[in-house]
Amino acid sequence: MKFLIINGVNLNLTGKRERDTYGTETLDEINAWLSARAQTMGHEADFTVTNIEGEICTAIQEADGTYDGVILNAGAYSHYSYAIRDAIAAVKVPVVEVHMSNIFARDAFRRTSVLSDVCRGVIAGFGKMSYLLAMESFEG
Amino acid sequence: MKFLIINGVNLNLTGKRERDTYGTETLDEINAWLSARAQTMGHEADFTVTNIEGEICTAIQEADGTYDGVILNAGAYSHYSYAIRDAIAAVKVPVVEVHMSNIFARDAFRRTSVLSDVCRGVIAGFGKMSYLLAMESFEG
Amino acid sequence: MKFLIINGVNLNLTGKRERDTYGTETLDEINAWLSARAQTMGHEADFTVTNIEGEICTAIQEADGTYDGVILNAGAYSHYSYAIRDAIAAVKVPVVEVHMSNIFARDAFRRTSVLSDVCRGVIAGFGKMSYLLAMESFEG
Amino acid sequence: MKFLIINGVNLNLTGKRERDTYGTETLDEINAWLSARAQTMGHEADFTVTNIEGEICTAIQEADGTYDGVILNAGAYSHYSYAIRDAIAAVKVPVVEVHMSNIFARDAFRRTSVLSDVCRGVIAGFGKMSYLLAMESFEG
Amino acid sequence: MKFLIINGVNLNLTGKRERDTYGTETLDEINAWLSARAQTMGHEADFTVTNIEGEICTAIQEADGTYDGVILNAGAYSHYSYAIRDAIAAVKVPVVEVHMSNIFARDAFRRTSVLSDVCRGVIAGFGKMSYLLAMESFEG
Amino acid sequence: MKFLIINGVNLNLTGKRERDTYGTETLDEINAWLSARAQTMGHEADFTVTNIEGEICTAIQEADGTYDGVILNAGAYSHYSYAIRDAIAAVKVPVVEVHMSNIFARDAFRRTSVLSDVCRGVIAGFGKMSYLLAMESFEG
Amino acid sequence: MKFLIINGVNLNLTGKRERDTYGTETLDEINAWLSARAQTMGHEADFTVTNIEGEICTAIQEADGTYDGVILNAGAYSHYSYAIRDAIAAVKVPVVEVHMSNIFARDAFRRTSVLSDVCRGVIAGFGKMSYLLAMESFEG
Amino acid sequence: MKFLIINGVNLNLTGKRERDTYGTETLDEINAWLSARAQTMGHEADFTVTNIEGEICTAIQEADGTYDGVILNAGAYSHYSYAIRDAIAAVKVPVVEVHMSNIFARDAFRRTSVLSDVCRGVIAGFGKMSYLLAMESFEG
Amino acid sequence: MKFLIINGVNLNLTGKRERDTYGTETLDEINAWLSARAQTMGHEADFTVTNIEGEICTAIQEADGTYDGVILNAGAYSHYSYAIRDAIAAVKVPVVEVHMSNIFARDAFRRTSVLSDVCRGVIAGFGKMSYLLAMESFEG
Amino acid sequence: MKFLIINGVNLNLTGKRERDTYGTETLDEINAWLSARAQTMGHEADFTVTNIEGEICTAIQEADGTYDGVILNAGAYSHYSYAIRDAIAAVKVPVVEVHMSNIFARDAFRRTSVLSDVCRGVIAGFGKMSYLLAMESFEG
Amino acid sequence: MKFLIINGVNLNLTGKRERDTYGTETLDEINAWLSARAQTMGHEADFTVTNIEGEICTAIQEADGTYDGVILNAGAYSHYSYAIRDAIAAVKVPVVEVHMSNIFARDAFRRTSVLSDVCRGVIAGFGKMSYLLAMESFEG
Amino acid sequence: MKFLIINGVNLNLTGKRERDTYGTETLDEINAWLSARAQTMGHEADFTVTNIEGEICTAIQEADGTYDGVILNAGAYSHYSYAIRDAIAAVKVPVVEVHMSNIFARDAFRRTSVLSDVCRGVIAGFGKMSYLLAMESFEG
Repeated sequence: MKFLIINGVNLNLTGKRERDTYGTETLDEINAWLSARAQTMGHEADFTVTNIEGEICTAIQEADGTYDGVILNAGAYSHYSYAIRDAIAAVKVPVVEVHMSNIFARDAFRRTSVLSDVCRGVIAGFGKMSYLLAMESFEG
Repeated sequence: MKFLIINGVNLNLTGKRERDTYGTETLDEINAWLSARAQTMGHEADFTVTNIEGEICTAIQEADGTYDGVILNAGAYSHYSYAIRDAIAAVKVPVVEVHMSNIFARDAFRRTSVLSDVCRGVIAGFGKMSYLLAMESFEG
Repeated sequence: MKFLIINGVNLNLTGKRERDTYGTETLDEINAWLSARAQTMGHEADFTVTNIEGEICTAIQEADGTYDGVILNAGAYSHYSYAIRDAIAAVKVPVVEVHMSNIFARDAFRRTSVLSDVCRGVIAGFGKMSYLLAMESFEG
Repeated sequence: MKFLIINGVNLNLTGKRERDTYGTETLDEINAWLSARAQTMGHEADFTVTNIEGEICTAIQEADGTYDGVILNAGAYSHYSYAIRDAIAAVKVPVVEVHMSNIFARDAFRRTSVLSDVCRGVIAGFGKMSYLLAMESFEG
Repeated sequence: MKFLIINGVNLNLTGKRERDTYGTETLDEINAWLSARAQTMGHEADFTVTNIEGEICTAIQEADGTYDGVILNAGAYSHYSYAIRDAIAAVKVPVVEVHMSNIFARDAFRRTSVLSDVCRGVIAGFGKMSYLLAMESFEG
Repeated sequence: MKFLIINGVNLNLTGKRERDTYGTETLDEINAWLSARAQTMGHEADFTVTNIEGEICTAIQEADGTYDGVILNAGAYSHYSYAIRDAIAAVKVPVVEVHMSNIFARDAFRRTSVLSDVCRGVIAGFGKMSYLLAMESFEG
Repeated sequence: MKFLIINGVNLNLTGKRERDTYGTETLDEINAWLSARAQTMGHEADFTVTNIEGEICTAIQEADGTYDGVILNAGAYSHYSYAIRDAIAAVKVPVVEVHMSNIFARDAFRRTSVLSDVCRGVIAGFGKMSYLLAMESFEG
Repeated sequence: MKFLIINGVNLNLTGKRERDTYGTETLDEINAWLSARAQTMGHEADFTVTNIEGEICTAIQEADGTYDGVILNAGAYSHYSYAIRDAIAAVKVPVVEVHMSNIFARDAFRRTSVLSDVCRGVIAGFGKMSYLLAMESFEG
Repeated sequence: MKFLIINGVNLNLTGKRERDTYGTETLDEINAWLSARAQTMGHEADFTVTNIEGEICTAIQEADGTYDGVILNAGAYSHYSYAIRDAIAAVKVPVVEVHMSNIFARDAFRRTSVLSDVCRGVIAGFGKMSYLLAMESFEG
Repeated sequence: MKFLIINGVNLNLTGKRERDTYGTETLDEINAWLSARAQTMGHEADFTVTNIEGEICTAIQEADGTYDGVILNAGAYSHYSYAIRDAIAAVKVPVVEVHMSNIFARDAFRRTSVLSDVCRGVIAGFGKMSYLLAMESFEG
Repeated sequence: MKFLIINGVNLNLTGKRERDTYGTETLDEINAWLSARAQTMGHEADFTVTNIEGEICTAIQEADGTYDGVILNAGAYSHYSYAIRDAIAAVKVPVVEVHMSNIFARDAFRRTSVLSDVCRGVIAGFGKMSYLLAMESFEG
Repeated sequence: MKFLIINGVNLNLTGKRERDTYGTETLDEINAWLSARAQTMGHEADFTVTNIEGEICTAIQEADGTYDGVILNAGAYSHYSYAIRDAIAAVKVPVVEVHMSNIFARDAFRRTSVLSDVCRGVIAGFGKMSYLLAMESFEG
């Protein structure tokens, strides 16, 4: 299987700042680890990261027909981007929503994701493991 | 009269996906049909489409002074983009808000558009006809 | 095609009062203009006006099977009459909701219409043109 | 005992439209069946039906002193008519609120009846049986 | 000065039922008393009473140009009738809203009147005196 | 037909306390009366009563396949037990929700039942008659 | 009869500022006019004015047993002072709430008075006449 | 590692009813599968299931000190049981919240879990895989 | 006097976990201390503790007629158990609600107790002293 | 220990009015009783009473460093005075909030105190005993 | 220019308590510093401080015509005092609202100031610099 | 010190449109003025302007480590962009939020900024002076 891992706004800072919440590994390091784990499982993983909401929509649109699954951490956009929500709803490729932190245990605005109801499922709170579990969910 | 038709996020997918809601004609086909109808009516129609909220703002800003009217289908941004709302409020060119589907008969979040009160009027629910009716509204 | 144009509460005052919002043409003059435009388009238009909510329900009920479309401006009842909403939902004849003013740019209570989700579509903000656009929408 | 059965807005359509929700018997057929059942039970049943909110108020007012009980299906008015509510509160004759469908399993606005707290009781969800159960409730 | 006193839904029951709240004088007796008081003050008072929301709208519409002031007790319609509100807003004749009971000391739904902001003023809680004070307010 | 009548929390106190609201007959007396009435109608009635939410769920689960209908008065759990709601939704046996008092005329929290939308219907306000009417509703 | 007229916060500015809303007569001039009118009616009127919430409470407390009625314009305190509300509720002397402007036609926060339900009645919108009508209400 | 898998209210019905949502495998079959997978991974898994809220609290309390992790599917209790929430908060053993269905894509009341903020993380939407992913999350 | 002290969900953990909030004394130690203090005051104290909501209801029901007062710390159930609320309302024995911590200074959901309005009074924030003060309140 | 008992708005009326709620003892009598009880317990009690919100703030400020504890019954100010709340939060002397009546069993606005979360604890519902229990709470 | 700096409730404690939030300088020291800075800039600064809401209103009223600008830190009153709001709205002298702390980053109730919309502008979060920036804003 | 001034959506229109609200100076003119004032103060100022939300996030991210302070006017994004909020929270460089207009005195949606709680402070309502005061705030 072939997966696209999309990281949204401010996730490029992972491992560089707010290390109490997000750990010390950079996004590149996490992606490398994920890539290796994917290969072990016989899968392939591509990665994209952007701060721009509309580019996340485009990435989801273009994943359709190319990938077997999308693993999406949209960052703060998760909580208000009906644009991304509509992109997910419009494509056939299944999307799994992930968050490294437990979004339900932080600010009030983070407790609602407008993406969740059009995703296949949600995984939150397990650091970089959240991405790996999402990948494994496709084997179920 | 000269019109700018702006299509926002995910509308590039029109006719390709979710055909039950949006029909089978692609956005290019709809635009061609609109262009022809505009010519019949003695008008001219330009078209732009983008997934990026800020580019919709820019398009509206730049339409001011160049076009007699803007016909705007902002997609999901209609429901939360105060940025686009402010762009509309800032320009003198009249903007008509259109939606192909009846946004009031779908998800709860779609029942409110933050753009409507600064547009000249709203037309929703008539498929590609929504764009044409918007164009005709300028003849009233 | 044969249309019934229903005007609800206080719309009998059109052109007589609140001319800043509704213009100076009376409802009779608007209806005459609409009737002429309908004939030009090869259609037929009947008109009814009433201040009584229940009579709007009856008019919608009786339009079913007789008309190809109903064009409804229910006035203030649009914002709370679940009775009219149920009448629309109960009939097969398609109903288009129209408003002369842009209801989204006025009082807060006017921003919600309880009728919209059971109508085919909504047209608001174009003065008497709203009625004509509604009629043209049936040609789409 | 002598009962008045009041049917409100759009209930004249019963059995003619929306048969999935309301069944195929017309209101006349239901009333005839109720009348027969009433006679079997040694009661008498009168019937009135109207689309006009104010006429429901008048019917309730006039039932006072004439009937032993009122069985009221106010249709959509149940959900917002404080006028009908006040009429019920003003009279001594007990009023039982009935609905053929289970109003709690449909649209959100139907889940609240502003009439219920001034009625003797509420019966909803049993089709035409709702009326009969209401009549039997007076024997309790 | 010439006044129209409009009494709305269920006010025809005044003095007949719920005497704890509304006293024992019938509406006819109150109107007669008001008429006499008006004459003493050199004014003229006409009276209308109806249970039907749309007829209150019509009465307000027709009062315009004929009366110097309208004194309106719309009963329960006060709390949700945007139709009556729009009728008041559409006419030039000043309307004073009255209630015999103190609507702010009763049910929660009675604490808001959707009419008040388009009336000249509000008088509530003084029994039949509310009407008389409304009439005197025009002398101010 | 064979019915299970489930009485939930604090209903074991019926007839012993709060007699103004619930009458002076004990639950045992009511059940005996219901049982006799059931026999007269050619039905069979079993009874269970418990203060524990989870045991109501179990009772509903086990009624499936054994009874033709469940008559459920869940007491205060009606207003917040999504657990009981899910039990009802999970079984095929139809459940009728009953309340002896008119729950809509008491405390605010009692005006909403989270069970109603998954029950066949609701009967409230008729004392012990509520149970009998529920039983008769299955004959409709 | 002997009345105490209490004017609350910022009412000492009446006639000096915001003359569009409150007119050009000063509070002293209004009080003098009211005093004269009271005498004409055979009554006596005392006056107090303060910006301090607690002093309004004290004035109401001390009016009990001394005056036949209190006429209270608490100004902005009307909208949030449960302290004044409790003072009114604690005394036996009837209090009439008055406002010179129509508080229901201004800012949203002004549409609710927390005092109204413990006053005998409310009069709003008639300028200085509001005070006079309040005084006359005691003759009813 | 040693895990306790707690299944709450109505989950004993899994595979027996509502198979569209929850699949056709029974809870026993799912537990057997999980147990086998745990062994493969070198872990140990115990299982408990109950309909009673308080017993879930007790199970969580007793897991503390005995297990390395708790995997909790509390069913409908997830959405309102602050009792279970407090049990989780009181113990040191980490708890992962799982749901077989995507709770964010169903009824509105299911979109909020009062447990999530005191759990380590949340996994929802992957059928029986949700339990397995939760177990794997402890390896992260 | 004879008192029943009821401790609800998770209070069996007192002194064992979350010692920052609840102190280091176990519930048994607190009960022993209370028992001794009761004796000193000439009273008698019985104790019960349970995690199950319905068992708290039963305990309250059975206290009626046996005890002079009930001292209830329902734990998290305080914030949503209308079942316990109804049990308190149904009995004649006075119930005092206690909390060891200051529930108003913690999570938002803890700031409302649905039990308080049917209890005699509320004491919160004084650790084990809360129970003692409740006992002393009966001497008042 | 040395205590300051602060009584806020309208509490000077205690025993004089609303005796059903507050009893027949005057505040002076209650204070004398409290003073005596304090002496018995080896404490000293000072008293202050004022209707003015800002003076309550000042009293709290000045109690800091002088008293071992403040017992505060702010009356209606409890429900909205963030000023008093901030005064309590600013001082080191512990403040216990008391109410003679059970504020949770009265008007809706009384169910929330904005002071509670910055006080040490809350005692409500025990008449004059509330003050005494507060004093005893400092011995815990 | 001549400025009046008004400090409201609890600001007299500045520098004495809650030094983490407000720093260690006393209000007198801050005022002295401000006075010196004003002189440097060629301005004059007067100071007033009070805990009483109504006295803040009076200070604002009296500043009108005497000062070129008012710099107001109303403390907790900022969040609910419509009385102070009305005083600001009534005067011609421009008022700048200041807060030493960032009120938007603290308690929820502090995030809304009812004064802001009638002030010229708002400055929050800069400690004693907030006052100085407010003074400088008048030079803009 | 070195500052980055970030102007967000539609601020490129400053001085060109809506001059009543924003004045007649263009953004370039304002920036030039600011730059000059910065130099006078011994500081350095860089400027960036963009309509795209994600580019504002990037600008904030990149300012970290390069600038001593960021002065941010995010325009309409201020009211809903949790993405920008998270960017501010993620960086160490202090950010001051500025608005030229008094956002609290305009549309309701403008009264809340989701950025404020993670900024050092907020300055609104002083036209181009808002930027200068923000710069001066760093000298405090």
